[in-house]
Amino acid sequence: MAMRSHYCGLVTEALLGETVSLCGWVNRRRDHGGVIFVDVRDREGYVQVVCDPDRAETFKVAESLRNEFCVQIKGVVRARPEGTVNDNLKSGKIEVLCHELIVLNPSITPPFQIDEENLSETTRLTHRVLDLRRPYMQNNLMLRYKVSMEVRKFLDANGFVDVETPMLTKSTPEGARDYLVPSRVHDGQFFALPQSPQLFKQLLMVAGFDRYYQIVKCFRDEDLRADRQPEFTQIDIETSFLSEEEIRAMFQGMITTVFKNTINVDLGEFPVMTYQEAMHRYGSDKPDLRVKLEFTEVTDVMADVDFKVFSGAATMKNGRVVALRVPGGSSEVGGISRGEIDAYTEFVKIYGAKGLAYIRVNDLSKGRDGLQSPIVKNIHDKALQAVLERSGAQNGDLIFFGADKAKIVNDAIGALRIKIGHSEFGKKNGLFEKAWRPMWVVDFPMFEYDEEAERYTATHHPFTAPKDGHEDWMVTAPEKCISKGYDMVLNGWEMGGGSVRIHRADVQQKVFDALKITPEEAQLKFGFLLDALQYGAPPHGGLAFGLDRIVTLMTGAESIRDVIAFPKTQRAQCLLTQAPSPVDEKQLRELHIRLRNVDLAQKA
Amino acid sequence: MAMRSHYCGLVTEALLGETVSLCGWVNRRRDHGGVIFVDVRDREGYVQVVCDPDRAETFKVAESLRNEFCVQIKGVVRARPEGTVNDNLKSGKIEVLCHELIVLNPSITPPFQIDEENLSETTRLTHRVLDLRRPYMQNNLMLRYKVSMEVRKFLDANGFVDVETPMLTKSTPEGARDYLVPSRVHDGQFFALPQSPQLFKQLLMVAGFDRYYQIVKCFRDEDLRADRQPEFTQIDIETSFLSEEEIRAMFQGMITTVFKNTINVDLGEFPVMTYQEAMHRYGSDKPDLRVKLEFTEVTDVMADVDFKVFSGAATMKNGRVVALRVPGGSSEVGGISRGEIDAYTEFVKIYGAKGLAYIRVNDLSKGRDGLQSPIVKNIHDKALQAVLERSGAQNGDLIFFGADKAKIVNDAIGALRIKIGHSEFGKKNGLFEKAWRPMWVVDFPMFEYDEEAERYTATHHPFTAPKDGHEDWMVTAPEKCISKGYDMVLNGWEMGGGSVRIHRADVQQKVFDALKITPEEAQLKFGFLLDALQYGAPPHGGLAFGLDRIVTLMTGAESIRDVIAFPKTQRAQCLLTQAPSPVDEKQLRELHIRLRNVDLAQKA
Repeated sequence: MAMRSHYCGLVTEALLGETVSLCGWVNRRRDHGGVIFVDVRDREGYVQVVCDPDRAETFKVAESLRNEFCVQIKGVVRARPEGTVNDNLKSGKIEVLCHELIVLNPSITPPFQIDEENLSETTRLTHRVLDLRRPYMQNNLMLRYKVSMEVRKFLDANGFVDVETPMLTKSTPEGARDYLVPSRVHDGQFFALPQSPQLFKQLLMVAGFDRYYQIVKCFRDEDLRADRQPEFTQIDIETSFLSEEEIRAMFQGMITTVFKNTINVDLGEFPVMTYQEAMHRYGSDKPDLRVKLEFTEVTDVMADVDFKVFSGAATMKNGRVVALRVPGGSSEVGGISRGEIDAYTEFVKIYGAKGLAYIRVNDLSKGRDGLQSPIVKNIHDKALQAVLERSGAQNGDLIFFGADKAKIVNDAIGALRIKIGHSEFGKKNGLFEKAWRPMWVVDFPMFEYDEEAERYTATHHPFTAPKDGHEDWMVTAPEKCISKGYDMVLNGWEMGGGSVRIHRADVQQKVFDALKITPEEAQLKFGFLLDALQYGAPPHGGLAFGLDRIVTLMTGAESIRDVIAFPKTQRAQCLLTQAPSPVDEKQLRELHIRLRNVDLAQKA
Repeated sequence: MAMRSHYCGLVTEALLGETVSLCGWVNRRRDHGGVIFVDVRDREGYVQVVCDPDRAETFKVAESLRNEFCVQIKGVVRARPEGTVNDNLKSGKIEVLCHELIVLNPSITPPFQIDEENLSETTRLTHRVLDLRRPYMQNNLMLRYKVSMEVRKFLDANGFVDVETPMLTKSTPEGARDYLVPSRVHDGQFFALPQSPQLFKQLLMVAGFDRYYQIVKCFRDEDLRADRQPEFTQIDIETSFLSEEEIRAMFQGMITTVFKNTINVDLGEFPVMTYQEAMHRYGSDKPDLRVKLEFTEVTDVMADVDFKVFSGAATMKNGRVVALRVPGGSSEVGGISRGEIDAYTEFVKIYGAKGLAYIRVNDLSKGRDGLQSPIVKNIHDKALQAVLERSGAQNGDLIFFGADKAKIVNDAIGALRIKIGHSEFGKKNGLFEKAWRPMWVVDFPMFEYDEEAERYTATHHPFTAPKDGHEDWMVTAPEKCISKGYDMVLNGWEMGGGSVRIHRADVQQKVFDALKITPEEAQLKFGFLLDALQYGAPPHGGLAFGLDRIVTLMTGAESIRDVIAFPKTQRAQCLLTQAPSPVDEKQLRELHIRLRNVDLAQKA
């Protein structure tokens, strides 16, 4: 006979009167009125098991139960007595009268209770196996699975084929830092773990696979931020013979379907915004549209004001001056306090801003007297009027300013916009809409100028196609050149991004020229791609989504680590297995390497 | 308007009279009777496109076409003229009259024709992108995808959840050699790429995920044989609360479903054979049941024969003497020649055999005179009679012998059995059945004695559970101890294998004791598993299938490399990308390692 007939969490009143066999973990035992109640937990939920003293043997076993014992129960499903129904549980209308109780495996006392909250992350990651027993983590990972399965179903139905690309591949010292794997067979040589299967998926298009996907681990050896892991999972996609618009439409459809079928969310329309507009209005290429605040451009009117910070920024190369109007920010009740402004001033310094100018709009009818501000006296009427009119200022508003190199202004005031939107003040004053706000950002510039290196770099990557007609600008005017790149953004997170690729060898060569990559260098790093482009490569494009991010967004988890079964810490360690760890000298010798650190080498 | 309305290979008579838009590659161009015929190829097959001189512009483009040009065609589907129908093609009844022809991308002359056969593997792997355009490789990889998708569907329907386990994990110097990844953050420490997610999947069971699967890359840094790759793909599965028999039944169902739904093969019943019986009858734990030859055990009757090779083997520790009767092997017409016997004698030496004794059964009615053999005079009547009777010898048979340590006999005569079965002789004489012959091999011994190391090692791995009641033998009589391990075998290939695992810490400890793994060592290597077993670990078990092997079997490919898009050579190299390759000194410095080879180090 099977050990289990039903999952604990799925025993409902449909089974009334039936004998069931359940397996799971003791979540809690309560002795009440001479009877023992045991909440048994499995992947699907909880069930209440009742052991009464009439069955002496079973009762004796029940008395021995402790939390996290693994048990098997045979019993009969019956209705809970009136007044004890629990509507929060699927099994809340029933209980199981225990006829037979077997301890499959006892448990020592766990270091924490499974339903305990506010555990430190170190505790959780060290005892990850117990942490993973918590319904929160089980739900996160079950949802993650559902998402990936919905993605596969959608792609399968649309003719996409999962083709595996190598994990042991070639190091290309471009972009992020590679994880390296020393070769034993080839002395002094190394594989690299892939940062993405970008080149391979393009090769698959050239090979005629037409539509490719893979849900695949990628690797970056970077210093970790809250939303990064050394290994992360990408939904990697490429297709031939579709235009930029067709690609976007198809994958908007995919994400919409996935959200609908997993968490029953209708994402609605995805507005399409150019990169330029996004930077202009929000100072960000991944604007959080839930925040109802926008930049007001005032660079043009600040060139000749007395306030040097503004006039300097307005006249410098790549300078920018913007206003950020915060409706109600100067209300007498519930407005933004002086202390808060000071805190925001500190906050924007993280992004390189030197200060945070502001105007409190107390009473527009009083002209300059109705404005309270340390800077207003150094701003001439025309500029002041432009600020108020363009921003649509009202009595009670607070207007912040950013003035510096455009990049600093965008970063600092863009972050301030989010900060205020998400603050208690923002939420109370209708500056934040609790909703799902997806969008596309398109028309990225092909190149960014790296002032330090004094050269252009690729905004997406060097295989991104330019807009039709922009090909020659790659050489003559790189700064004007727009690419066929696109990002899908949701609530301020980049969920995915991609581009139409270059499919002609001559165009690819022009990009390398613009990036000052010599033909020799190009051949060495990407020779196999350049070679492949010569044999009738099809027009193609694609994108990659971050699975970890999508699931984090869906669950509202605080950290990406809450949607990964066995994540690394921010110091790139696995607290469960204690990886990385020292290895034998013999292993190093076989790989033709030695440790630089002499002390460590001697210990090995 | 979309670039493509249909796949080339799927245009059929159902579309007669319709205008279609096709994209693909020029497979061949023929100029015939003033008209140009172009076979255009895509993932789904071929279509014949006709360009006539009436459309001058299109005709001019058609004249410029060369093989492997990537083209777009608009045209009308019409019936092929009588007598030109090609029944081998889905599109063989129609052709497309071209109205518009665009060269999307020209091609230089490829290094080989796409339909060329007998290319060297080096050529194929160097120009892998073009090699992948061949319908043979496209079909192999499309089938591979279908197999993995069918696996996912089956597992999904049975409540299995795909949970990703880490690629950067801990080195455990046990089993095969690890691929190592130096840590940048932790000086002198290394991650290892997983040889399998074995420990993580067990942890997921302890965590209560109940049913887990993953189609996942695994890594072994071993010297490569024909059917091995440094990275290979495993269908990795684990379940809680199922017995050995239930697990086998479920995954027999999975493989049966997959074969049926992908290549329409009905695998039928899977016989279950113990390890002991398999070794006894076939000298192999993965017998190819298509071969109709079996061992005849004669160890017991050979102890006192004059032929020292036999008597020595029969009386030595772990010695074995077997006969392998080959029906018809001595037929005057079409039998096995003396030269072939000599070749087989050389063949068995590969497996350590010192020679290959044989008897030709010419005429049983003549007694000893009817037997032709260099050894028969040194074998007494009783033994000879046993050989003939037990093997069921008939006139015209050839009987081979193996006599040595059992391992050598099993390997050598087991290989000979396969060799003869697959030979022309075997196929002509009904010794080989062209069929799918799946089976289970069960009841593996828990331990094998490693004579060199003078200690027991685990036959499967140290987490395999012993049969109920065998627990104490692990310490008192390890050689008697049978495990709950099982392998699924198909046509002589191990497709997958697994076991019920140990779920109790005390039993796990006994295995470590039997393997002479000290508690300190166990704690260091597997501490996190031992720790987890203490918290109510559920009874669990699972298995892993080799996806590469399954698809190789299904396609009948000669090499596992023919079912992998971008494989490594047997020297663990990627000829396409030239990985592995040297890396910058800066990269090595960041990873706290240096090359041992001083000459190479200076170049870096």
